[in-house]
Amino acid sequence: MTQDLATADSGPTRPRRGGRAAKRGNTGSFEQPPFRRLVNPFTPTRIVSEDELEAIHLASLRVLSEIGVEVLHDEARAIMKAHGADVRADTQRVHFDPALILEYVAHCPSEFEVHARNPAHNLHMGGNSLILAQMASAPNCSDLDRGRRPGNQEDFRNFIKLSQMHNIIQCQGGYPVEPIDIHPSIRHLECLRDIATLTDKAFHIYSLGRERNLDGLEIARIARGVSAEQFASEVSCFTIINTNSPLKLDIPMMEGIIHMSRHGQAVIVTPFTLAGAMAPVTIAGAVVEQNAEALAAIAFAQMVRKGAPVGYGGFTSNVDMRSGAPAFGTPEYMKAQLLGGQLARRYGIPYRSSNVCAANTVDAQAAYESTFSLWGVVQGGANMVKHAAGWLEGGLCCSYEKMMLDIDLLQMVAEFLQPLDLSEDALGVEAIRQVGPGGHFFGSPHTQARYKTAFYSPIISDWRNYETWAQAGSPTAIDHANRLWKERLAMYEPPPMEEAIRDELDAFVERRIREGGAPTDF
Amino acid sequence: MTQDLATADSGPTRPRRGGRAAKRGNTGSFEQPPFRRLVNPFTPTRIVSEDELEAIHLASLRVLSEIGVEVLHDEARAIMKAHGADVRADTQRVHFDPALILEYVAHCPSEFEVHARNPAHNLHMGGNSLILAQMASAPNCSDLDRGRRPGNQEDFRNFIKLSQMHNIIQCQGGYPVEPIDIHPSIRHLECLRDIATLTDKAFHIYSLGRERNLDGLEIARIARGVSAEQFASEVSCFTIINTNSPLKLDIPMMEGIIHMSRHGQAVIVTPFTLAGAMAPVTIAGAVVEQNAEALAAIAFAQMVRKGAPVGYGGFTSNVDMRSGAPAFGTPEYMKAQLLGGQLARRYGIPYRSSNVCAANTVDAQAAYESTFSLWGVVQGGANMVKHAAGWLEGGLCCSYEKMMLDIDLLQMVAEFLQPLDLSEDALGVEAIRQVGPGGHFFGSPHTQARYKTAFYSPIISDWRNYETWAQAGSPTAIDHANRLWKERLAMYEPPPMEEAIRDELDAFVERRIREGGAPTDF
Repeated sequence: MTQDLATADSGPTRPRRGGRAAKRGNTGSFEQPPFRRLVNPFTPTRIVSEDELEAIHLASLRVLSEIGVEVLHDEARAIMKAHGADVRADTQRVHFDPALILEYVAHCPSEFEVHARNPAHNLHMGGNSLILAQMASAPNCSDLDRGRRPGNQEDFRNFIKLSQMHNIIQCQGGYPVEPIDIHPSIRHLECLRDIATLTDKAFHIYSLGRERNLDGLEIARIARGVSAEQFASEVSCFTIINTNSPLKLDIPMMEGIIHMSRHGQAVIVTPFTLAGAMAPVTIAGAVVEQNAEALAAIAFAQMVRKGAPVGYGGFTSNVDMRSGAPAFGTPEYMKAQLLGGQLARRYGIPYRSSNVCAANTVDAQAAYESTFSLWGVVQGGANMVKHAAGWLEGGLCCSYEKMMLDIDLLQMVAEFLQPLDLSEDALGVEAIRQVGPGGHFFGSPHTQARYKTAFYSPIISDWRNYETWAQAGSPTAIDHANRLWKERLAMYEPPPMEEAIRDELDAFVERRIREGGAPTDF
Repeated sequence: MTQDLATADSGPTRPRRGGRAAKRGNTGSFEQPPFRRLVNPFTPTRIVSEDELEAIHLASLRVLSEIGVEVLHDEARAIMKAHGADVRADTQRVHFDPALILEYVAHCPSEFEVHARNPAHNLHMGGNSLILAQMASAPNCSDLDRGRRPGNQEDFRNFIKLSQMHNIIQCQGGYPVEPIDIHPSIRHLECLRDIATLTDKAFHIYSLGRERNLDGLEIARIARGVSAEQFASEVSCFTIINTNSPLKLDIPMMEGIIHMSRHGQAVIVTPFTLAGAMAPVTIAGAVVEQNAEALAAIAFAQMVRKGAPVGYGGFTSNVDMRSGAPAFGTPEYMKAQLLGGQLARRYGIPYRSSNVCAANTVDAQAAYESTFSLWGVVQGGANMVKHAAGWLEGGLCCSYEKMMLDIDLLQMVAEFLQPLDLSEDALGVEAIRQVGPGGHFFGSPHTQARYKTAFYSPIISDWRNYETWAQAGSPTAIDHANRLWKERLAMYEPPPMEEAIRDELDAFVERRIREGGAPTDF
């Protein structure tokens, strides 16, 4: 478990399949579907009727008007008061009239473009688009060779590189693992410089205080090479606002909303409403609370700037009632995913969900919890999937092997979303006529013309027969994933960046590091 | 791997959770959701438009009229001819006019009741009902202790017992594993007697020649203790008819349809149309062929007896184009599941799908392929899931551990299908008011009143934190499954059966064994 990566990767990389090996020419290339904007062709699955949805909506509005929300940030309360919220001098509790919430929520754009520094990696948020974002915020990482340990800069960079290389990971969702060897005061500078240079996809900025937001915005602007005016008119990055459930909005969150919205960047509000812990034990009740918190923060973003791009995040799940530990990918989680989607669409706001699990290793549990999550994503009509690749242990660990497993799962989901070919030739009547009863299609011209691209070719699934598989040492999915991430990481090549932009970026980051970065309380 | 079951099971059974242990009193009891008729509350997901569906339908009818089907059974061809099919003297090829197909398919009942010998286990087929049937027809079985080996009577009985004990497995789908220690001539007699006595749920009869069908029908009748007249008027068992794709209907299949339909029992026609092997390499083309074959056999059942209960089975999947091996739980499989469902509903016929995978062991692959299959089942609006528990290796192996994994997956899917509680109390506004901003719900009365039953409690998922899990030896899902099946199998108790019925059943089976059972060609 202490073998280092260089050693672990020093053996010959043996591609499992001739097809892929044959196509793999130069360094940096391997067989994968192209980068593409994903569109979910399916009508989202409704879990409640329109009347039932309205009951949840109205209950959330009652929570906001009768119970209210605690807002710890003075300027935010002042903004809310100036826009008509019930803010009193002697308390942080803010009450919102239902009509006020609805008035401001109505300003949310239903769709917007997300600009990456490489325009080929621009994305669309909302409608029936689906964006897949890399896992974020794990304190630990793990792989089969070196076991589980706190994250460092090398692991951070490895995950970033892997996400850049794989087309199915369409943007960064934050730091896949926290690099604890970088001091928190300058961590955001080092990490965002890495993200902005090692990848050319859109990314997330943490809302952890004013300085980090503003530094992140400037790094995103420089990386795109655009003016402040153009930057403010095009979404180029996003932040996740996790409310302090129940019903609290803290200072860094409010700072995040204020600065991101003022700069025209996306705010995705995601209450962390675990049923039975920070929210009612019923899924309906937890979603009522999720919805109330989301509406409060989203309305606030619109008070800061009408038309500010926002997302509606659903993260409601249940807990293990024996231990209080969060559970993910459960039936309750799926129900909350579908319900959250119906609510987000009711308000016309893009919907964010996640690919999550509670498993401790890349076993059957990790796979079924993640696949159930993706089921909820697709059928719930989610527009963005955070934590799409790498997530283990309820988010406490980013796993190299899980990342490869998730890449395969995401590629399969993306393939599921591709429209069926229903051309006359695809319907195959002539091919069936030619082969006739009792024949076979292996060698038919219809098959020969299509077989190389007819089906998605998975990267993890082992389809060898039992005997061949057993002779090969009975490798399981985690073994294949372990081989794959090392093979692929070794092929990483950084995306090009103009020298002037690189210089400007370095100058900014170095200056801010010299200035001490962001204040920390330790 | 050679440790025998008795030894493997001799240690104390240590339930992983206090909650279950506390509720587990007498032998034969463990915590599980009750036996219930499952209803899928979701609108099935459409993968093609009505126009596109019509194009597939019309292409299938062209196949049946222009290309035709080879029918190897003389009486069947005579029946087809008598009912208007184009049957010529010098060939086994039968052509069907589209109008003729539609005329007979219109006689199919859209829904019917399935009667078990225990009426509490009766099921409903069709509409938005969902029936889950045990895995069938594996030549091999496996468990972690004893490895993989050909099936025998003890394994066969173990799987039957496990399916009887678990409410989520609602009927038998055939022999979970073939007991090769029983001679084929009498295997059906021994196996069906076991199924009829060790379980009290409805079951499947193999269509492997006239004698086996008739023996199976008589065993089903005796087990229910009903007259031949009552038996013929109530569906009590079913048979799967796998056409010899492409476009061939062999003698045992035609015998099966004739005898099952004449006796009022259900015939579920399931073409085995692997895209790229026995069917066109395009999913649309493979489904055109599936649909043509299904319509031919279903129309034939209606020629045998108008109103005969039937099911429309979809089994279309892709193959590994490198090896020709079938793949399951793939994006292509899911697309075929959704498309098959749309076709079955177009004809108003109950739809059968499956829970299948190509994995060789109970790893992440087995879990994601199976969960993708179940996704297709639910969103495709399937009414019956064959191979719901135990399936590995594309059907070549029934695994004890996979069976437990699938039981958990099925129980989760069943929980997902339960309606949300949207009562005023469940919406939780008062609970949210009571806890207030920044509080927690663990100890609130709203939580206390509900926490024991609020969430589905999985049997495989390990939700302990990493440290506790690692201290316990880092067990993976397959380890939990291994412990579970042994714990549970040890609790098996046979369902009651009236002595007179048992005597009649034994007398029939013993007489048929003395007579030599069914003819075999070896």
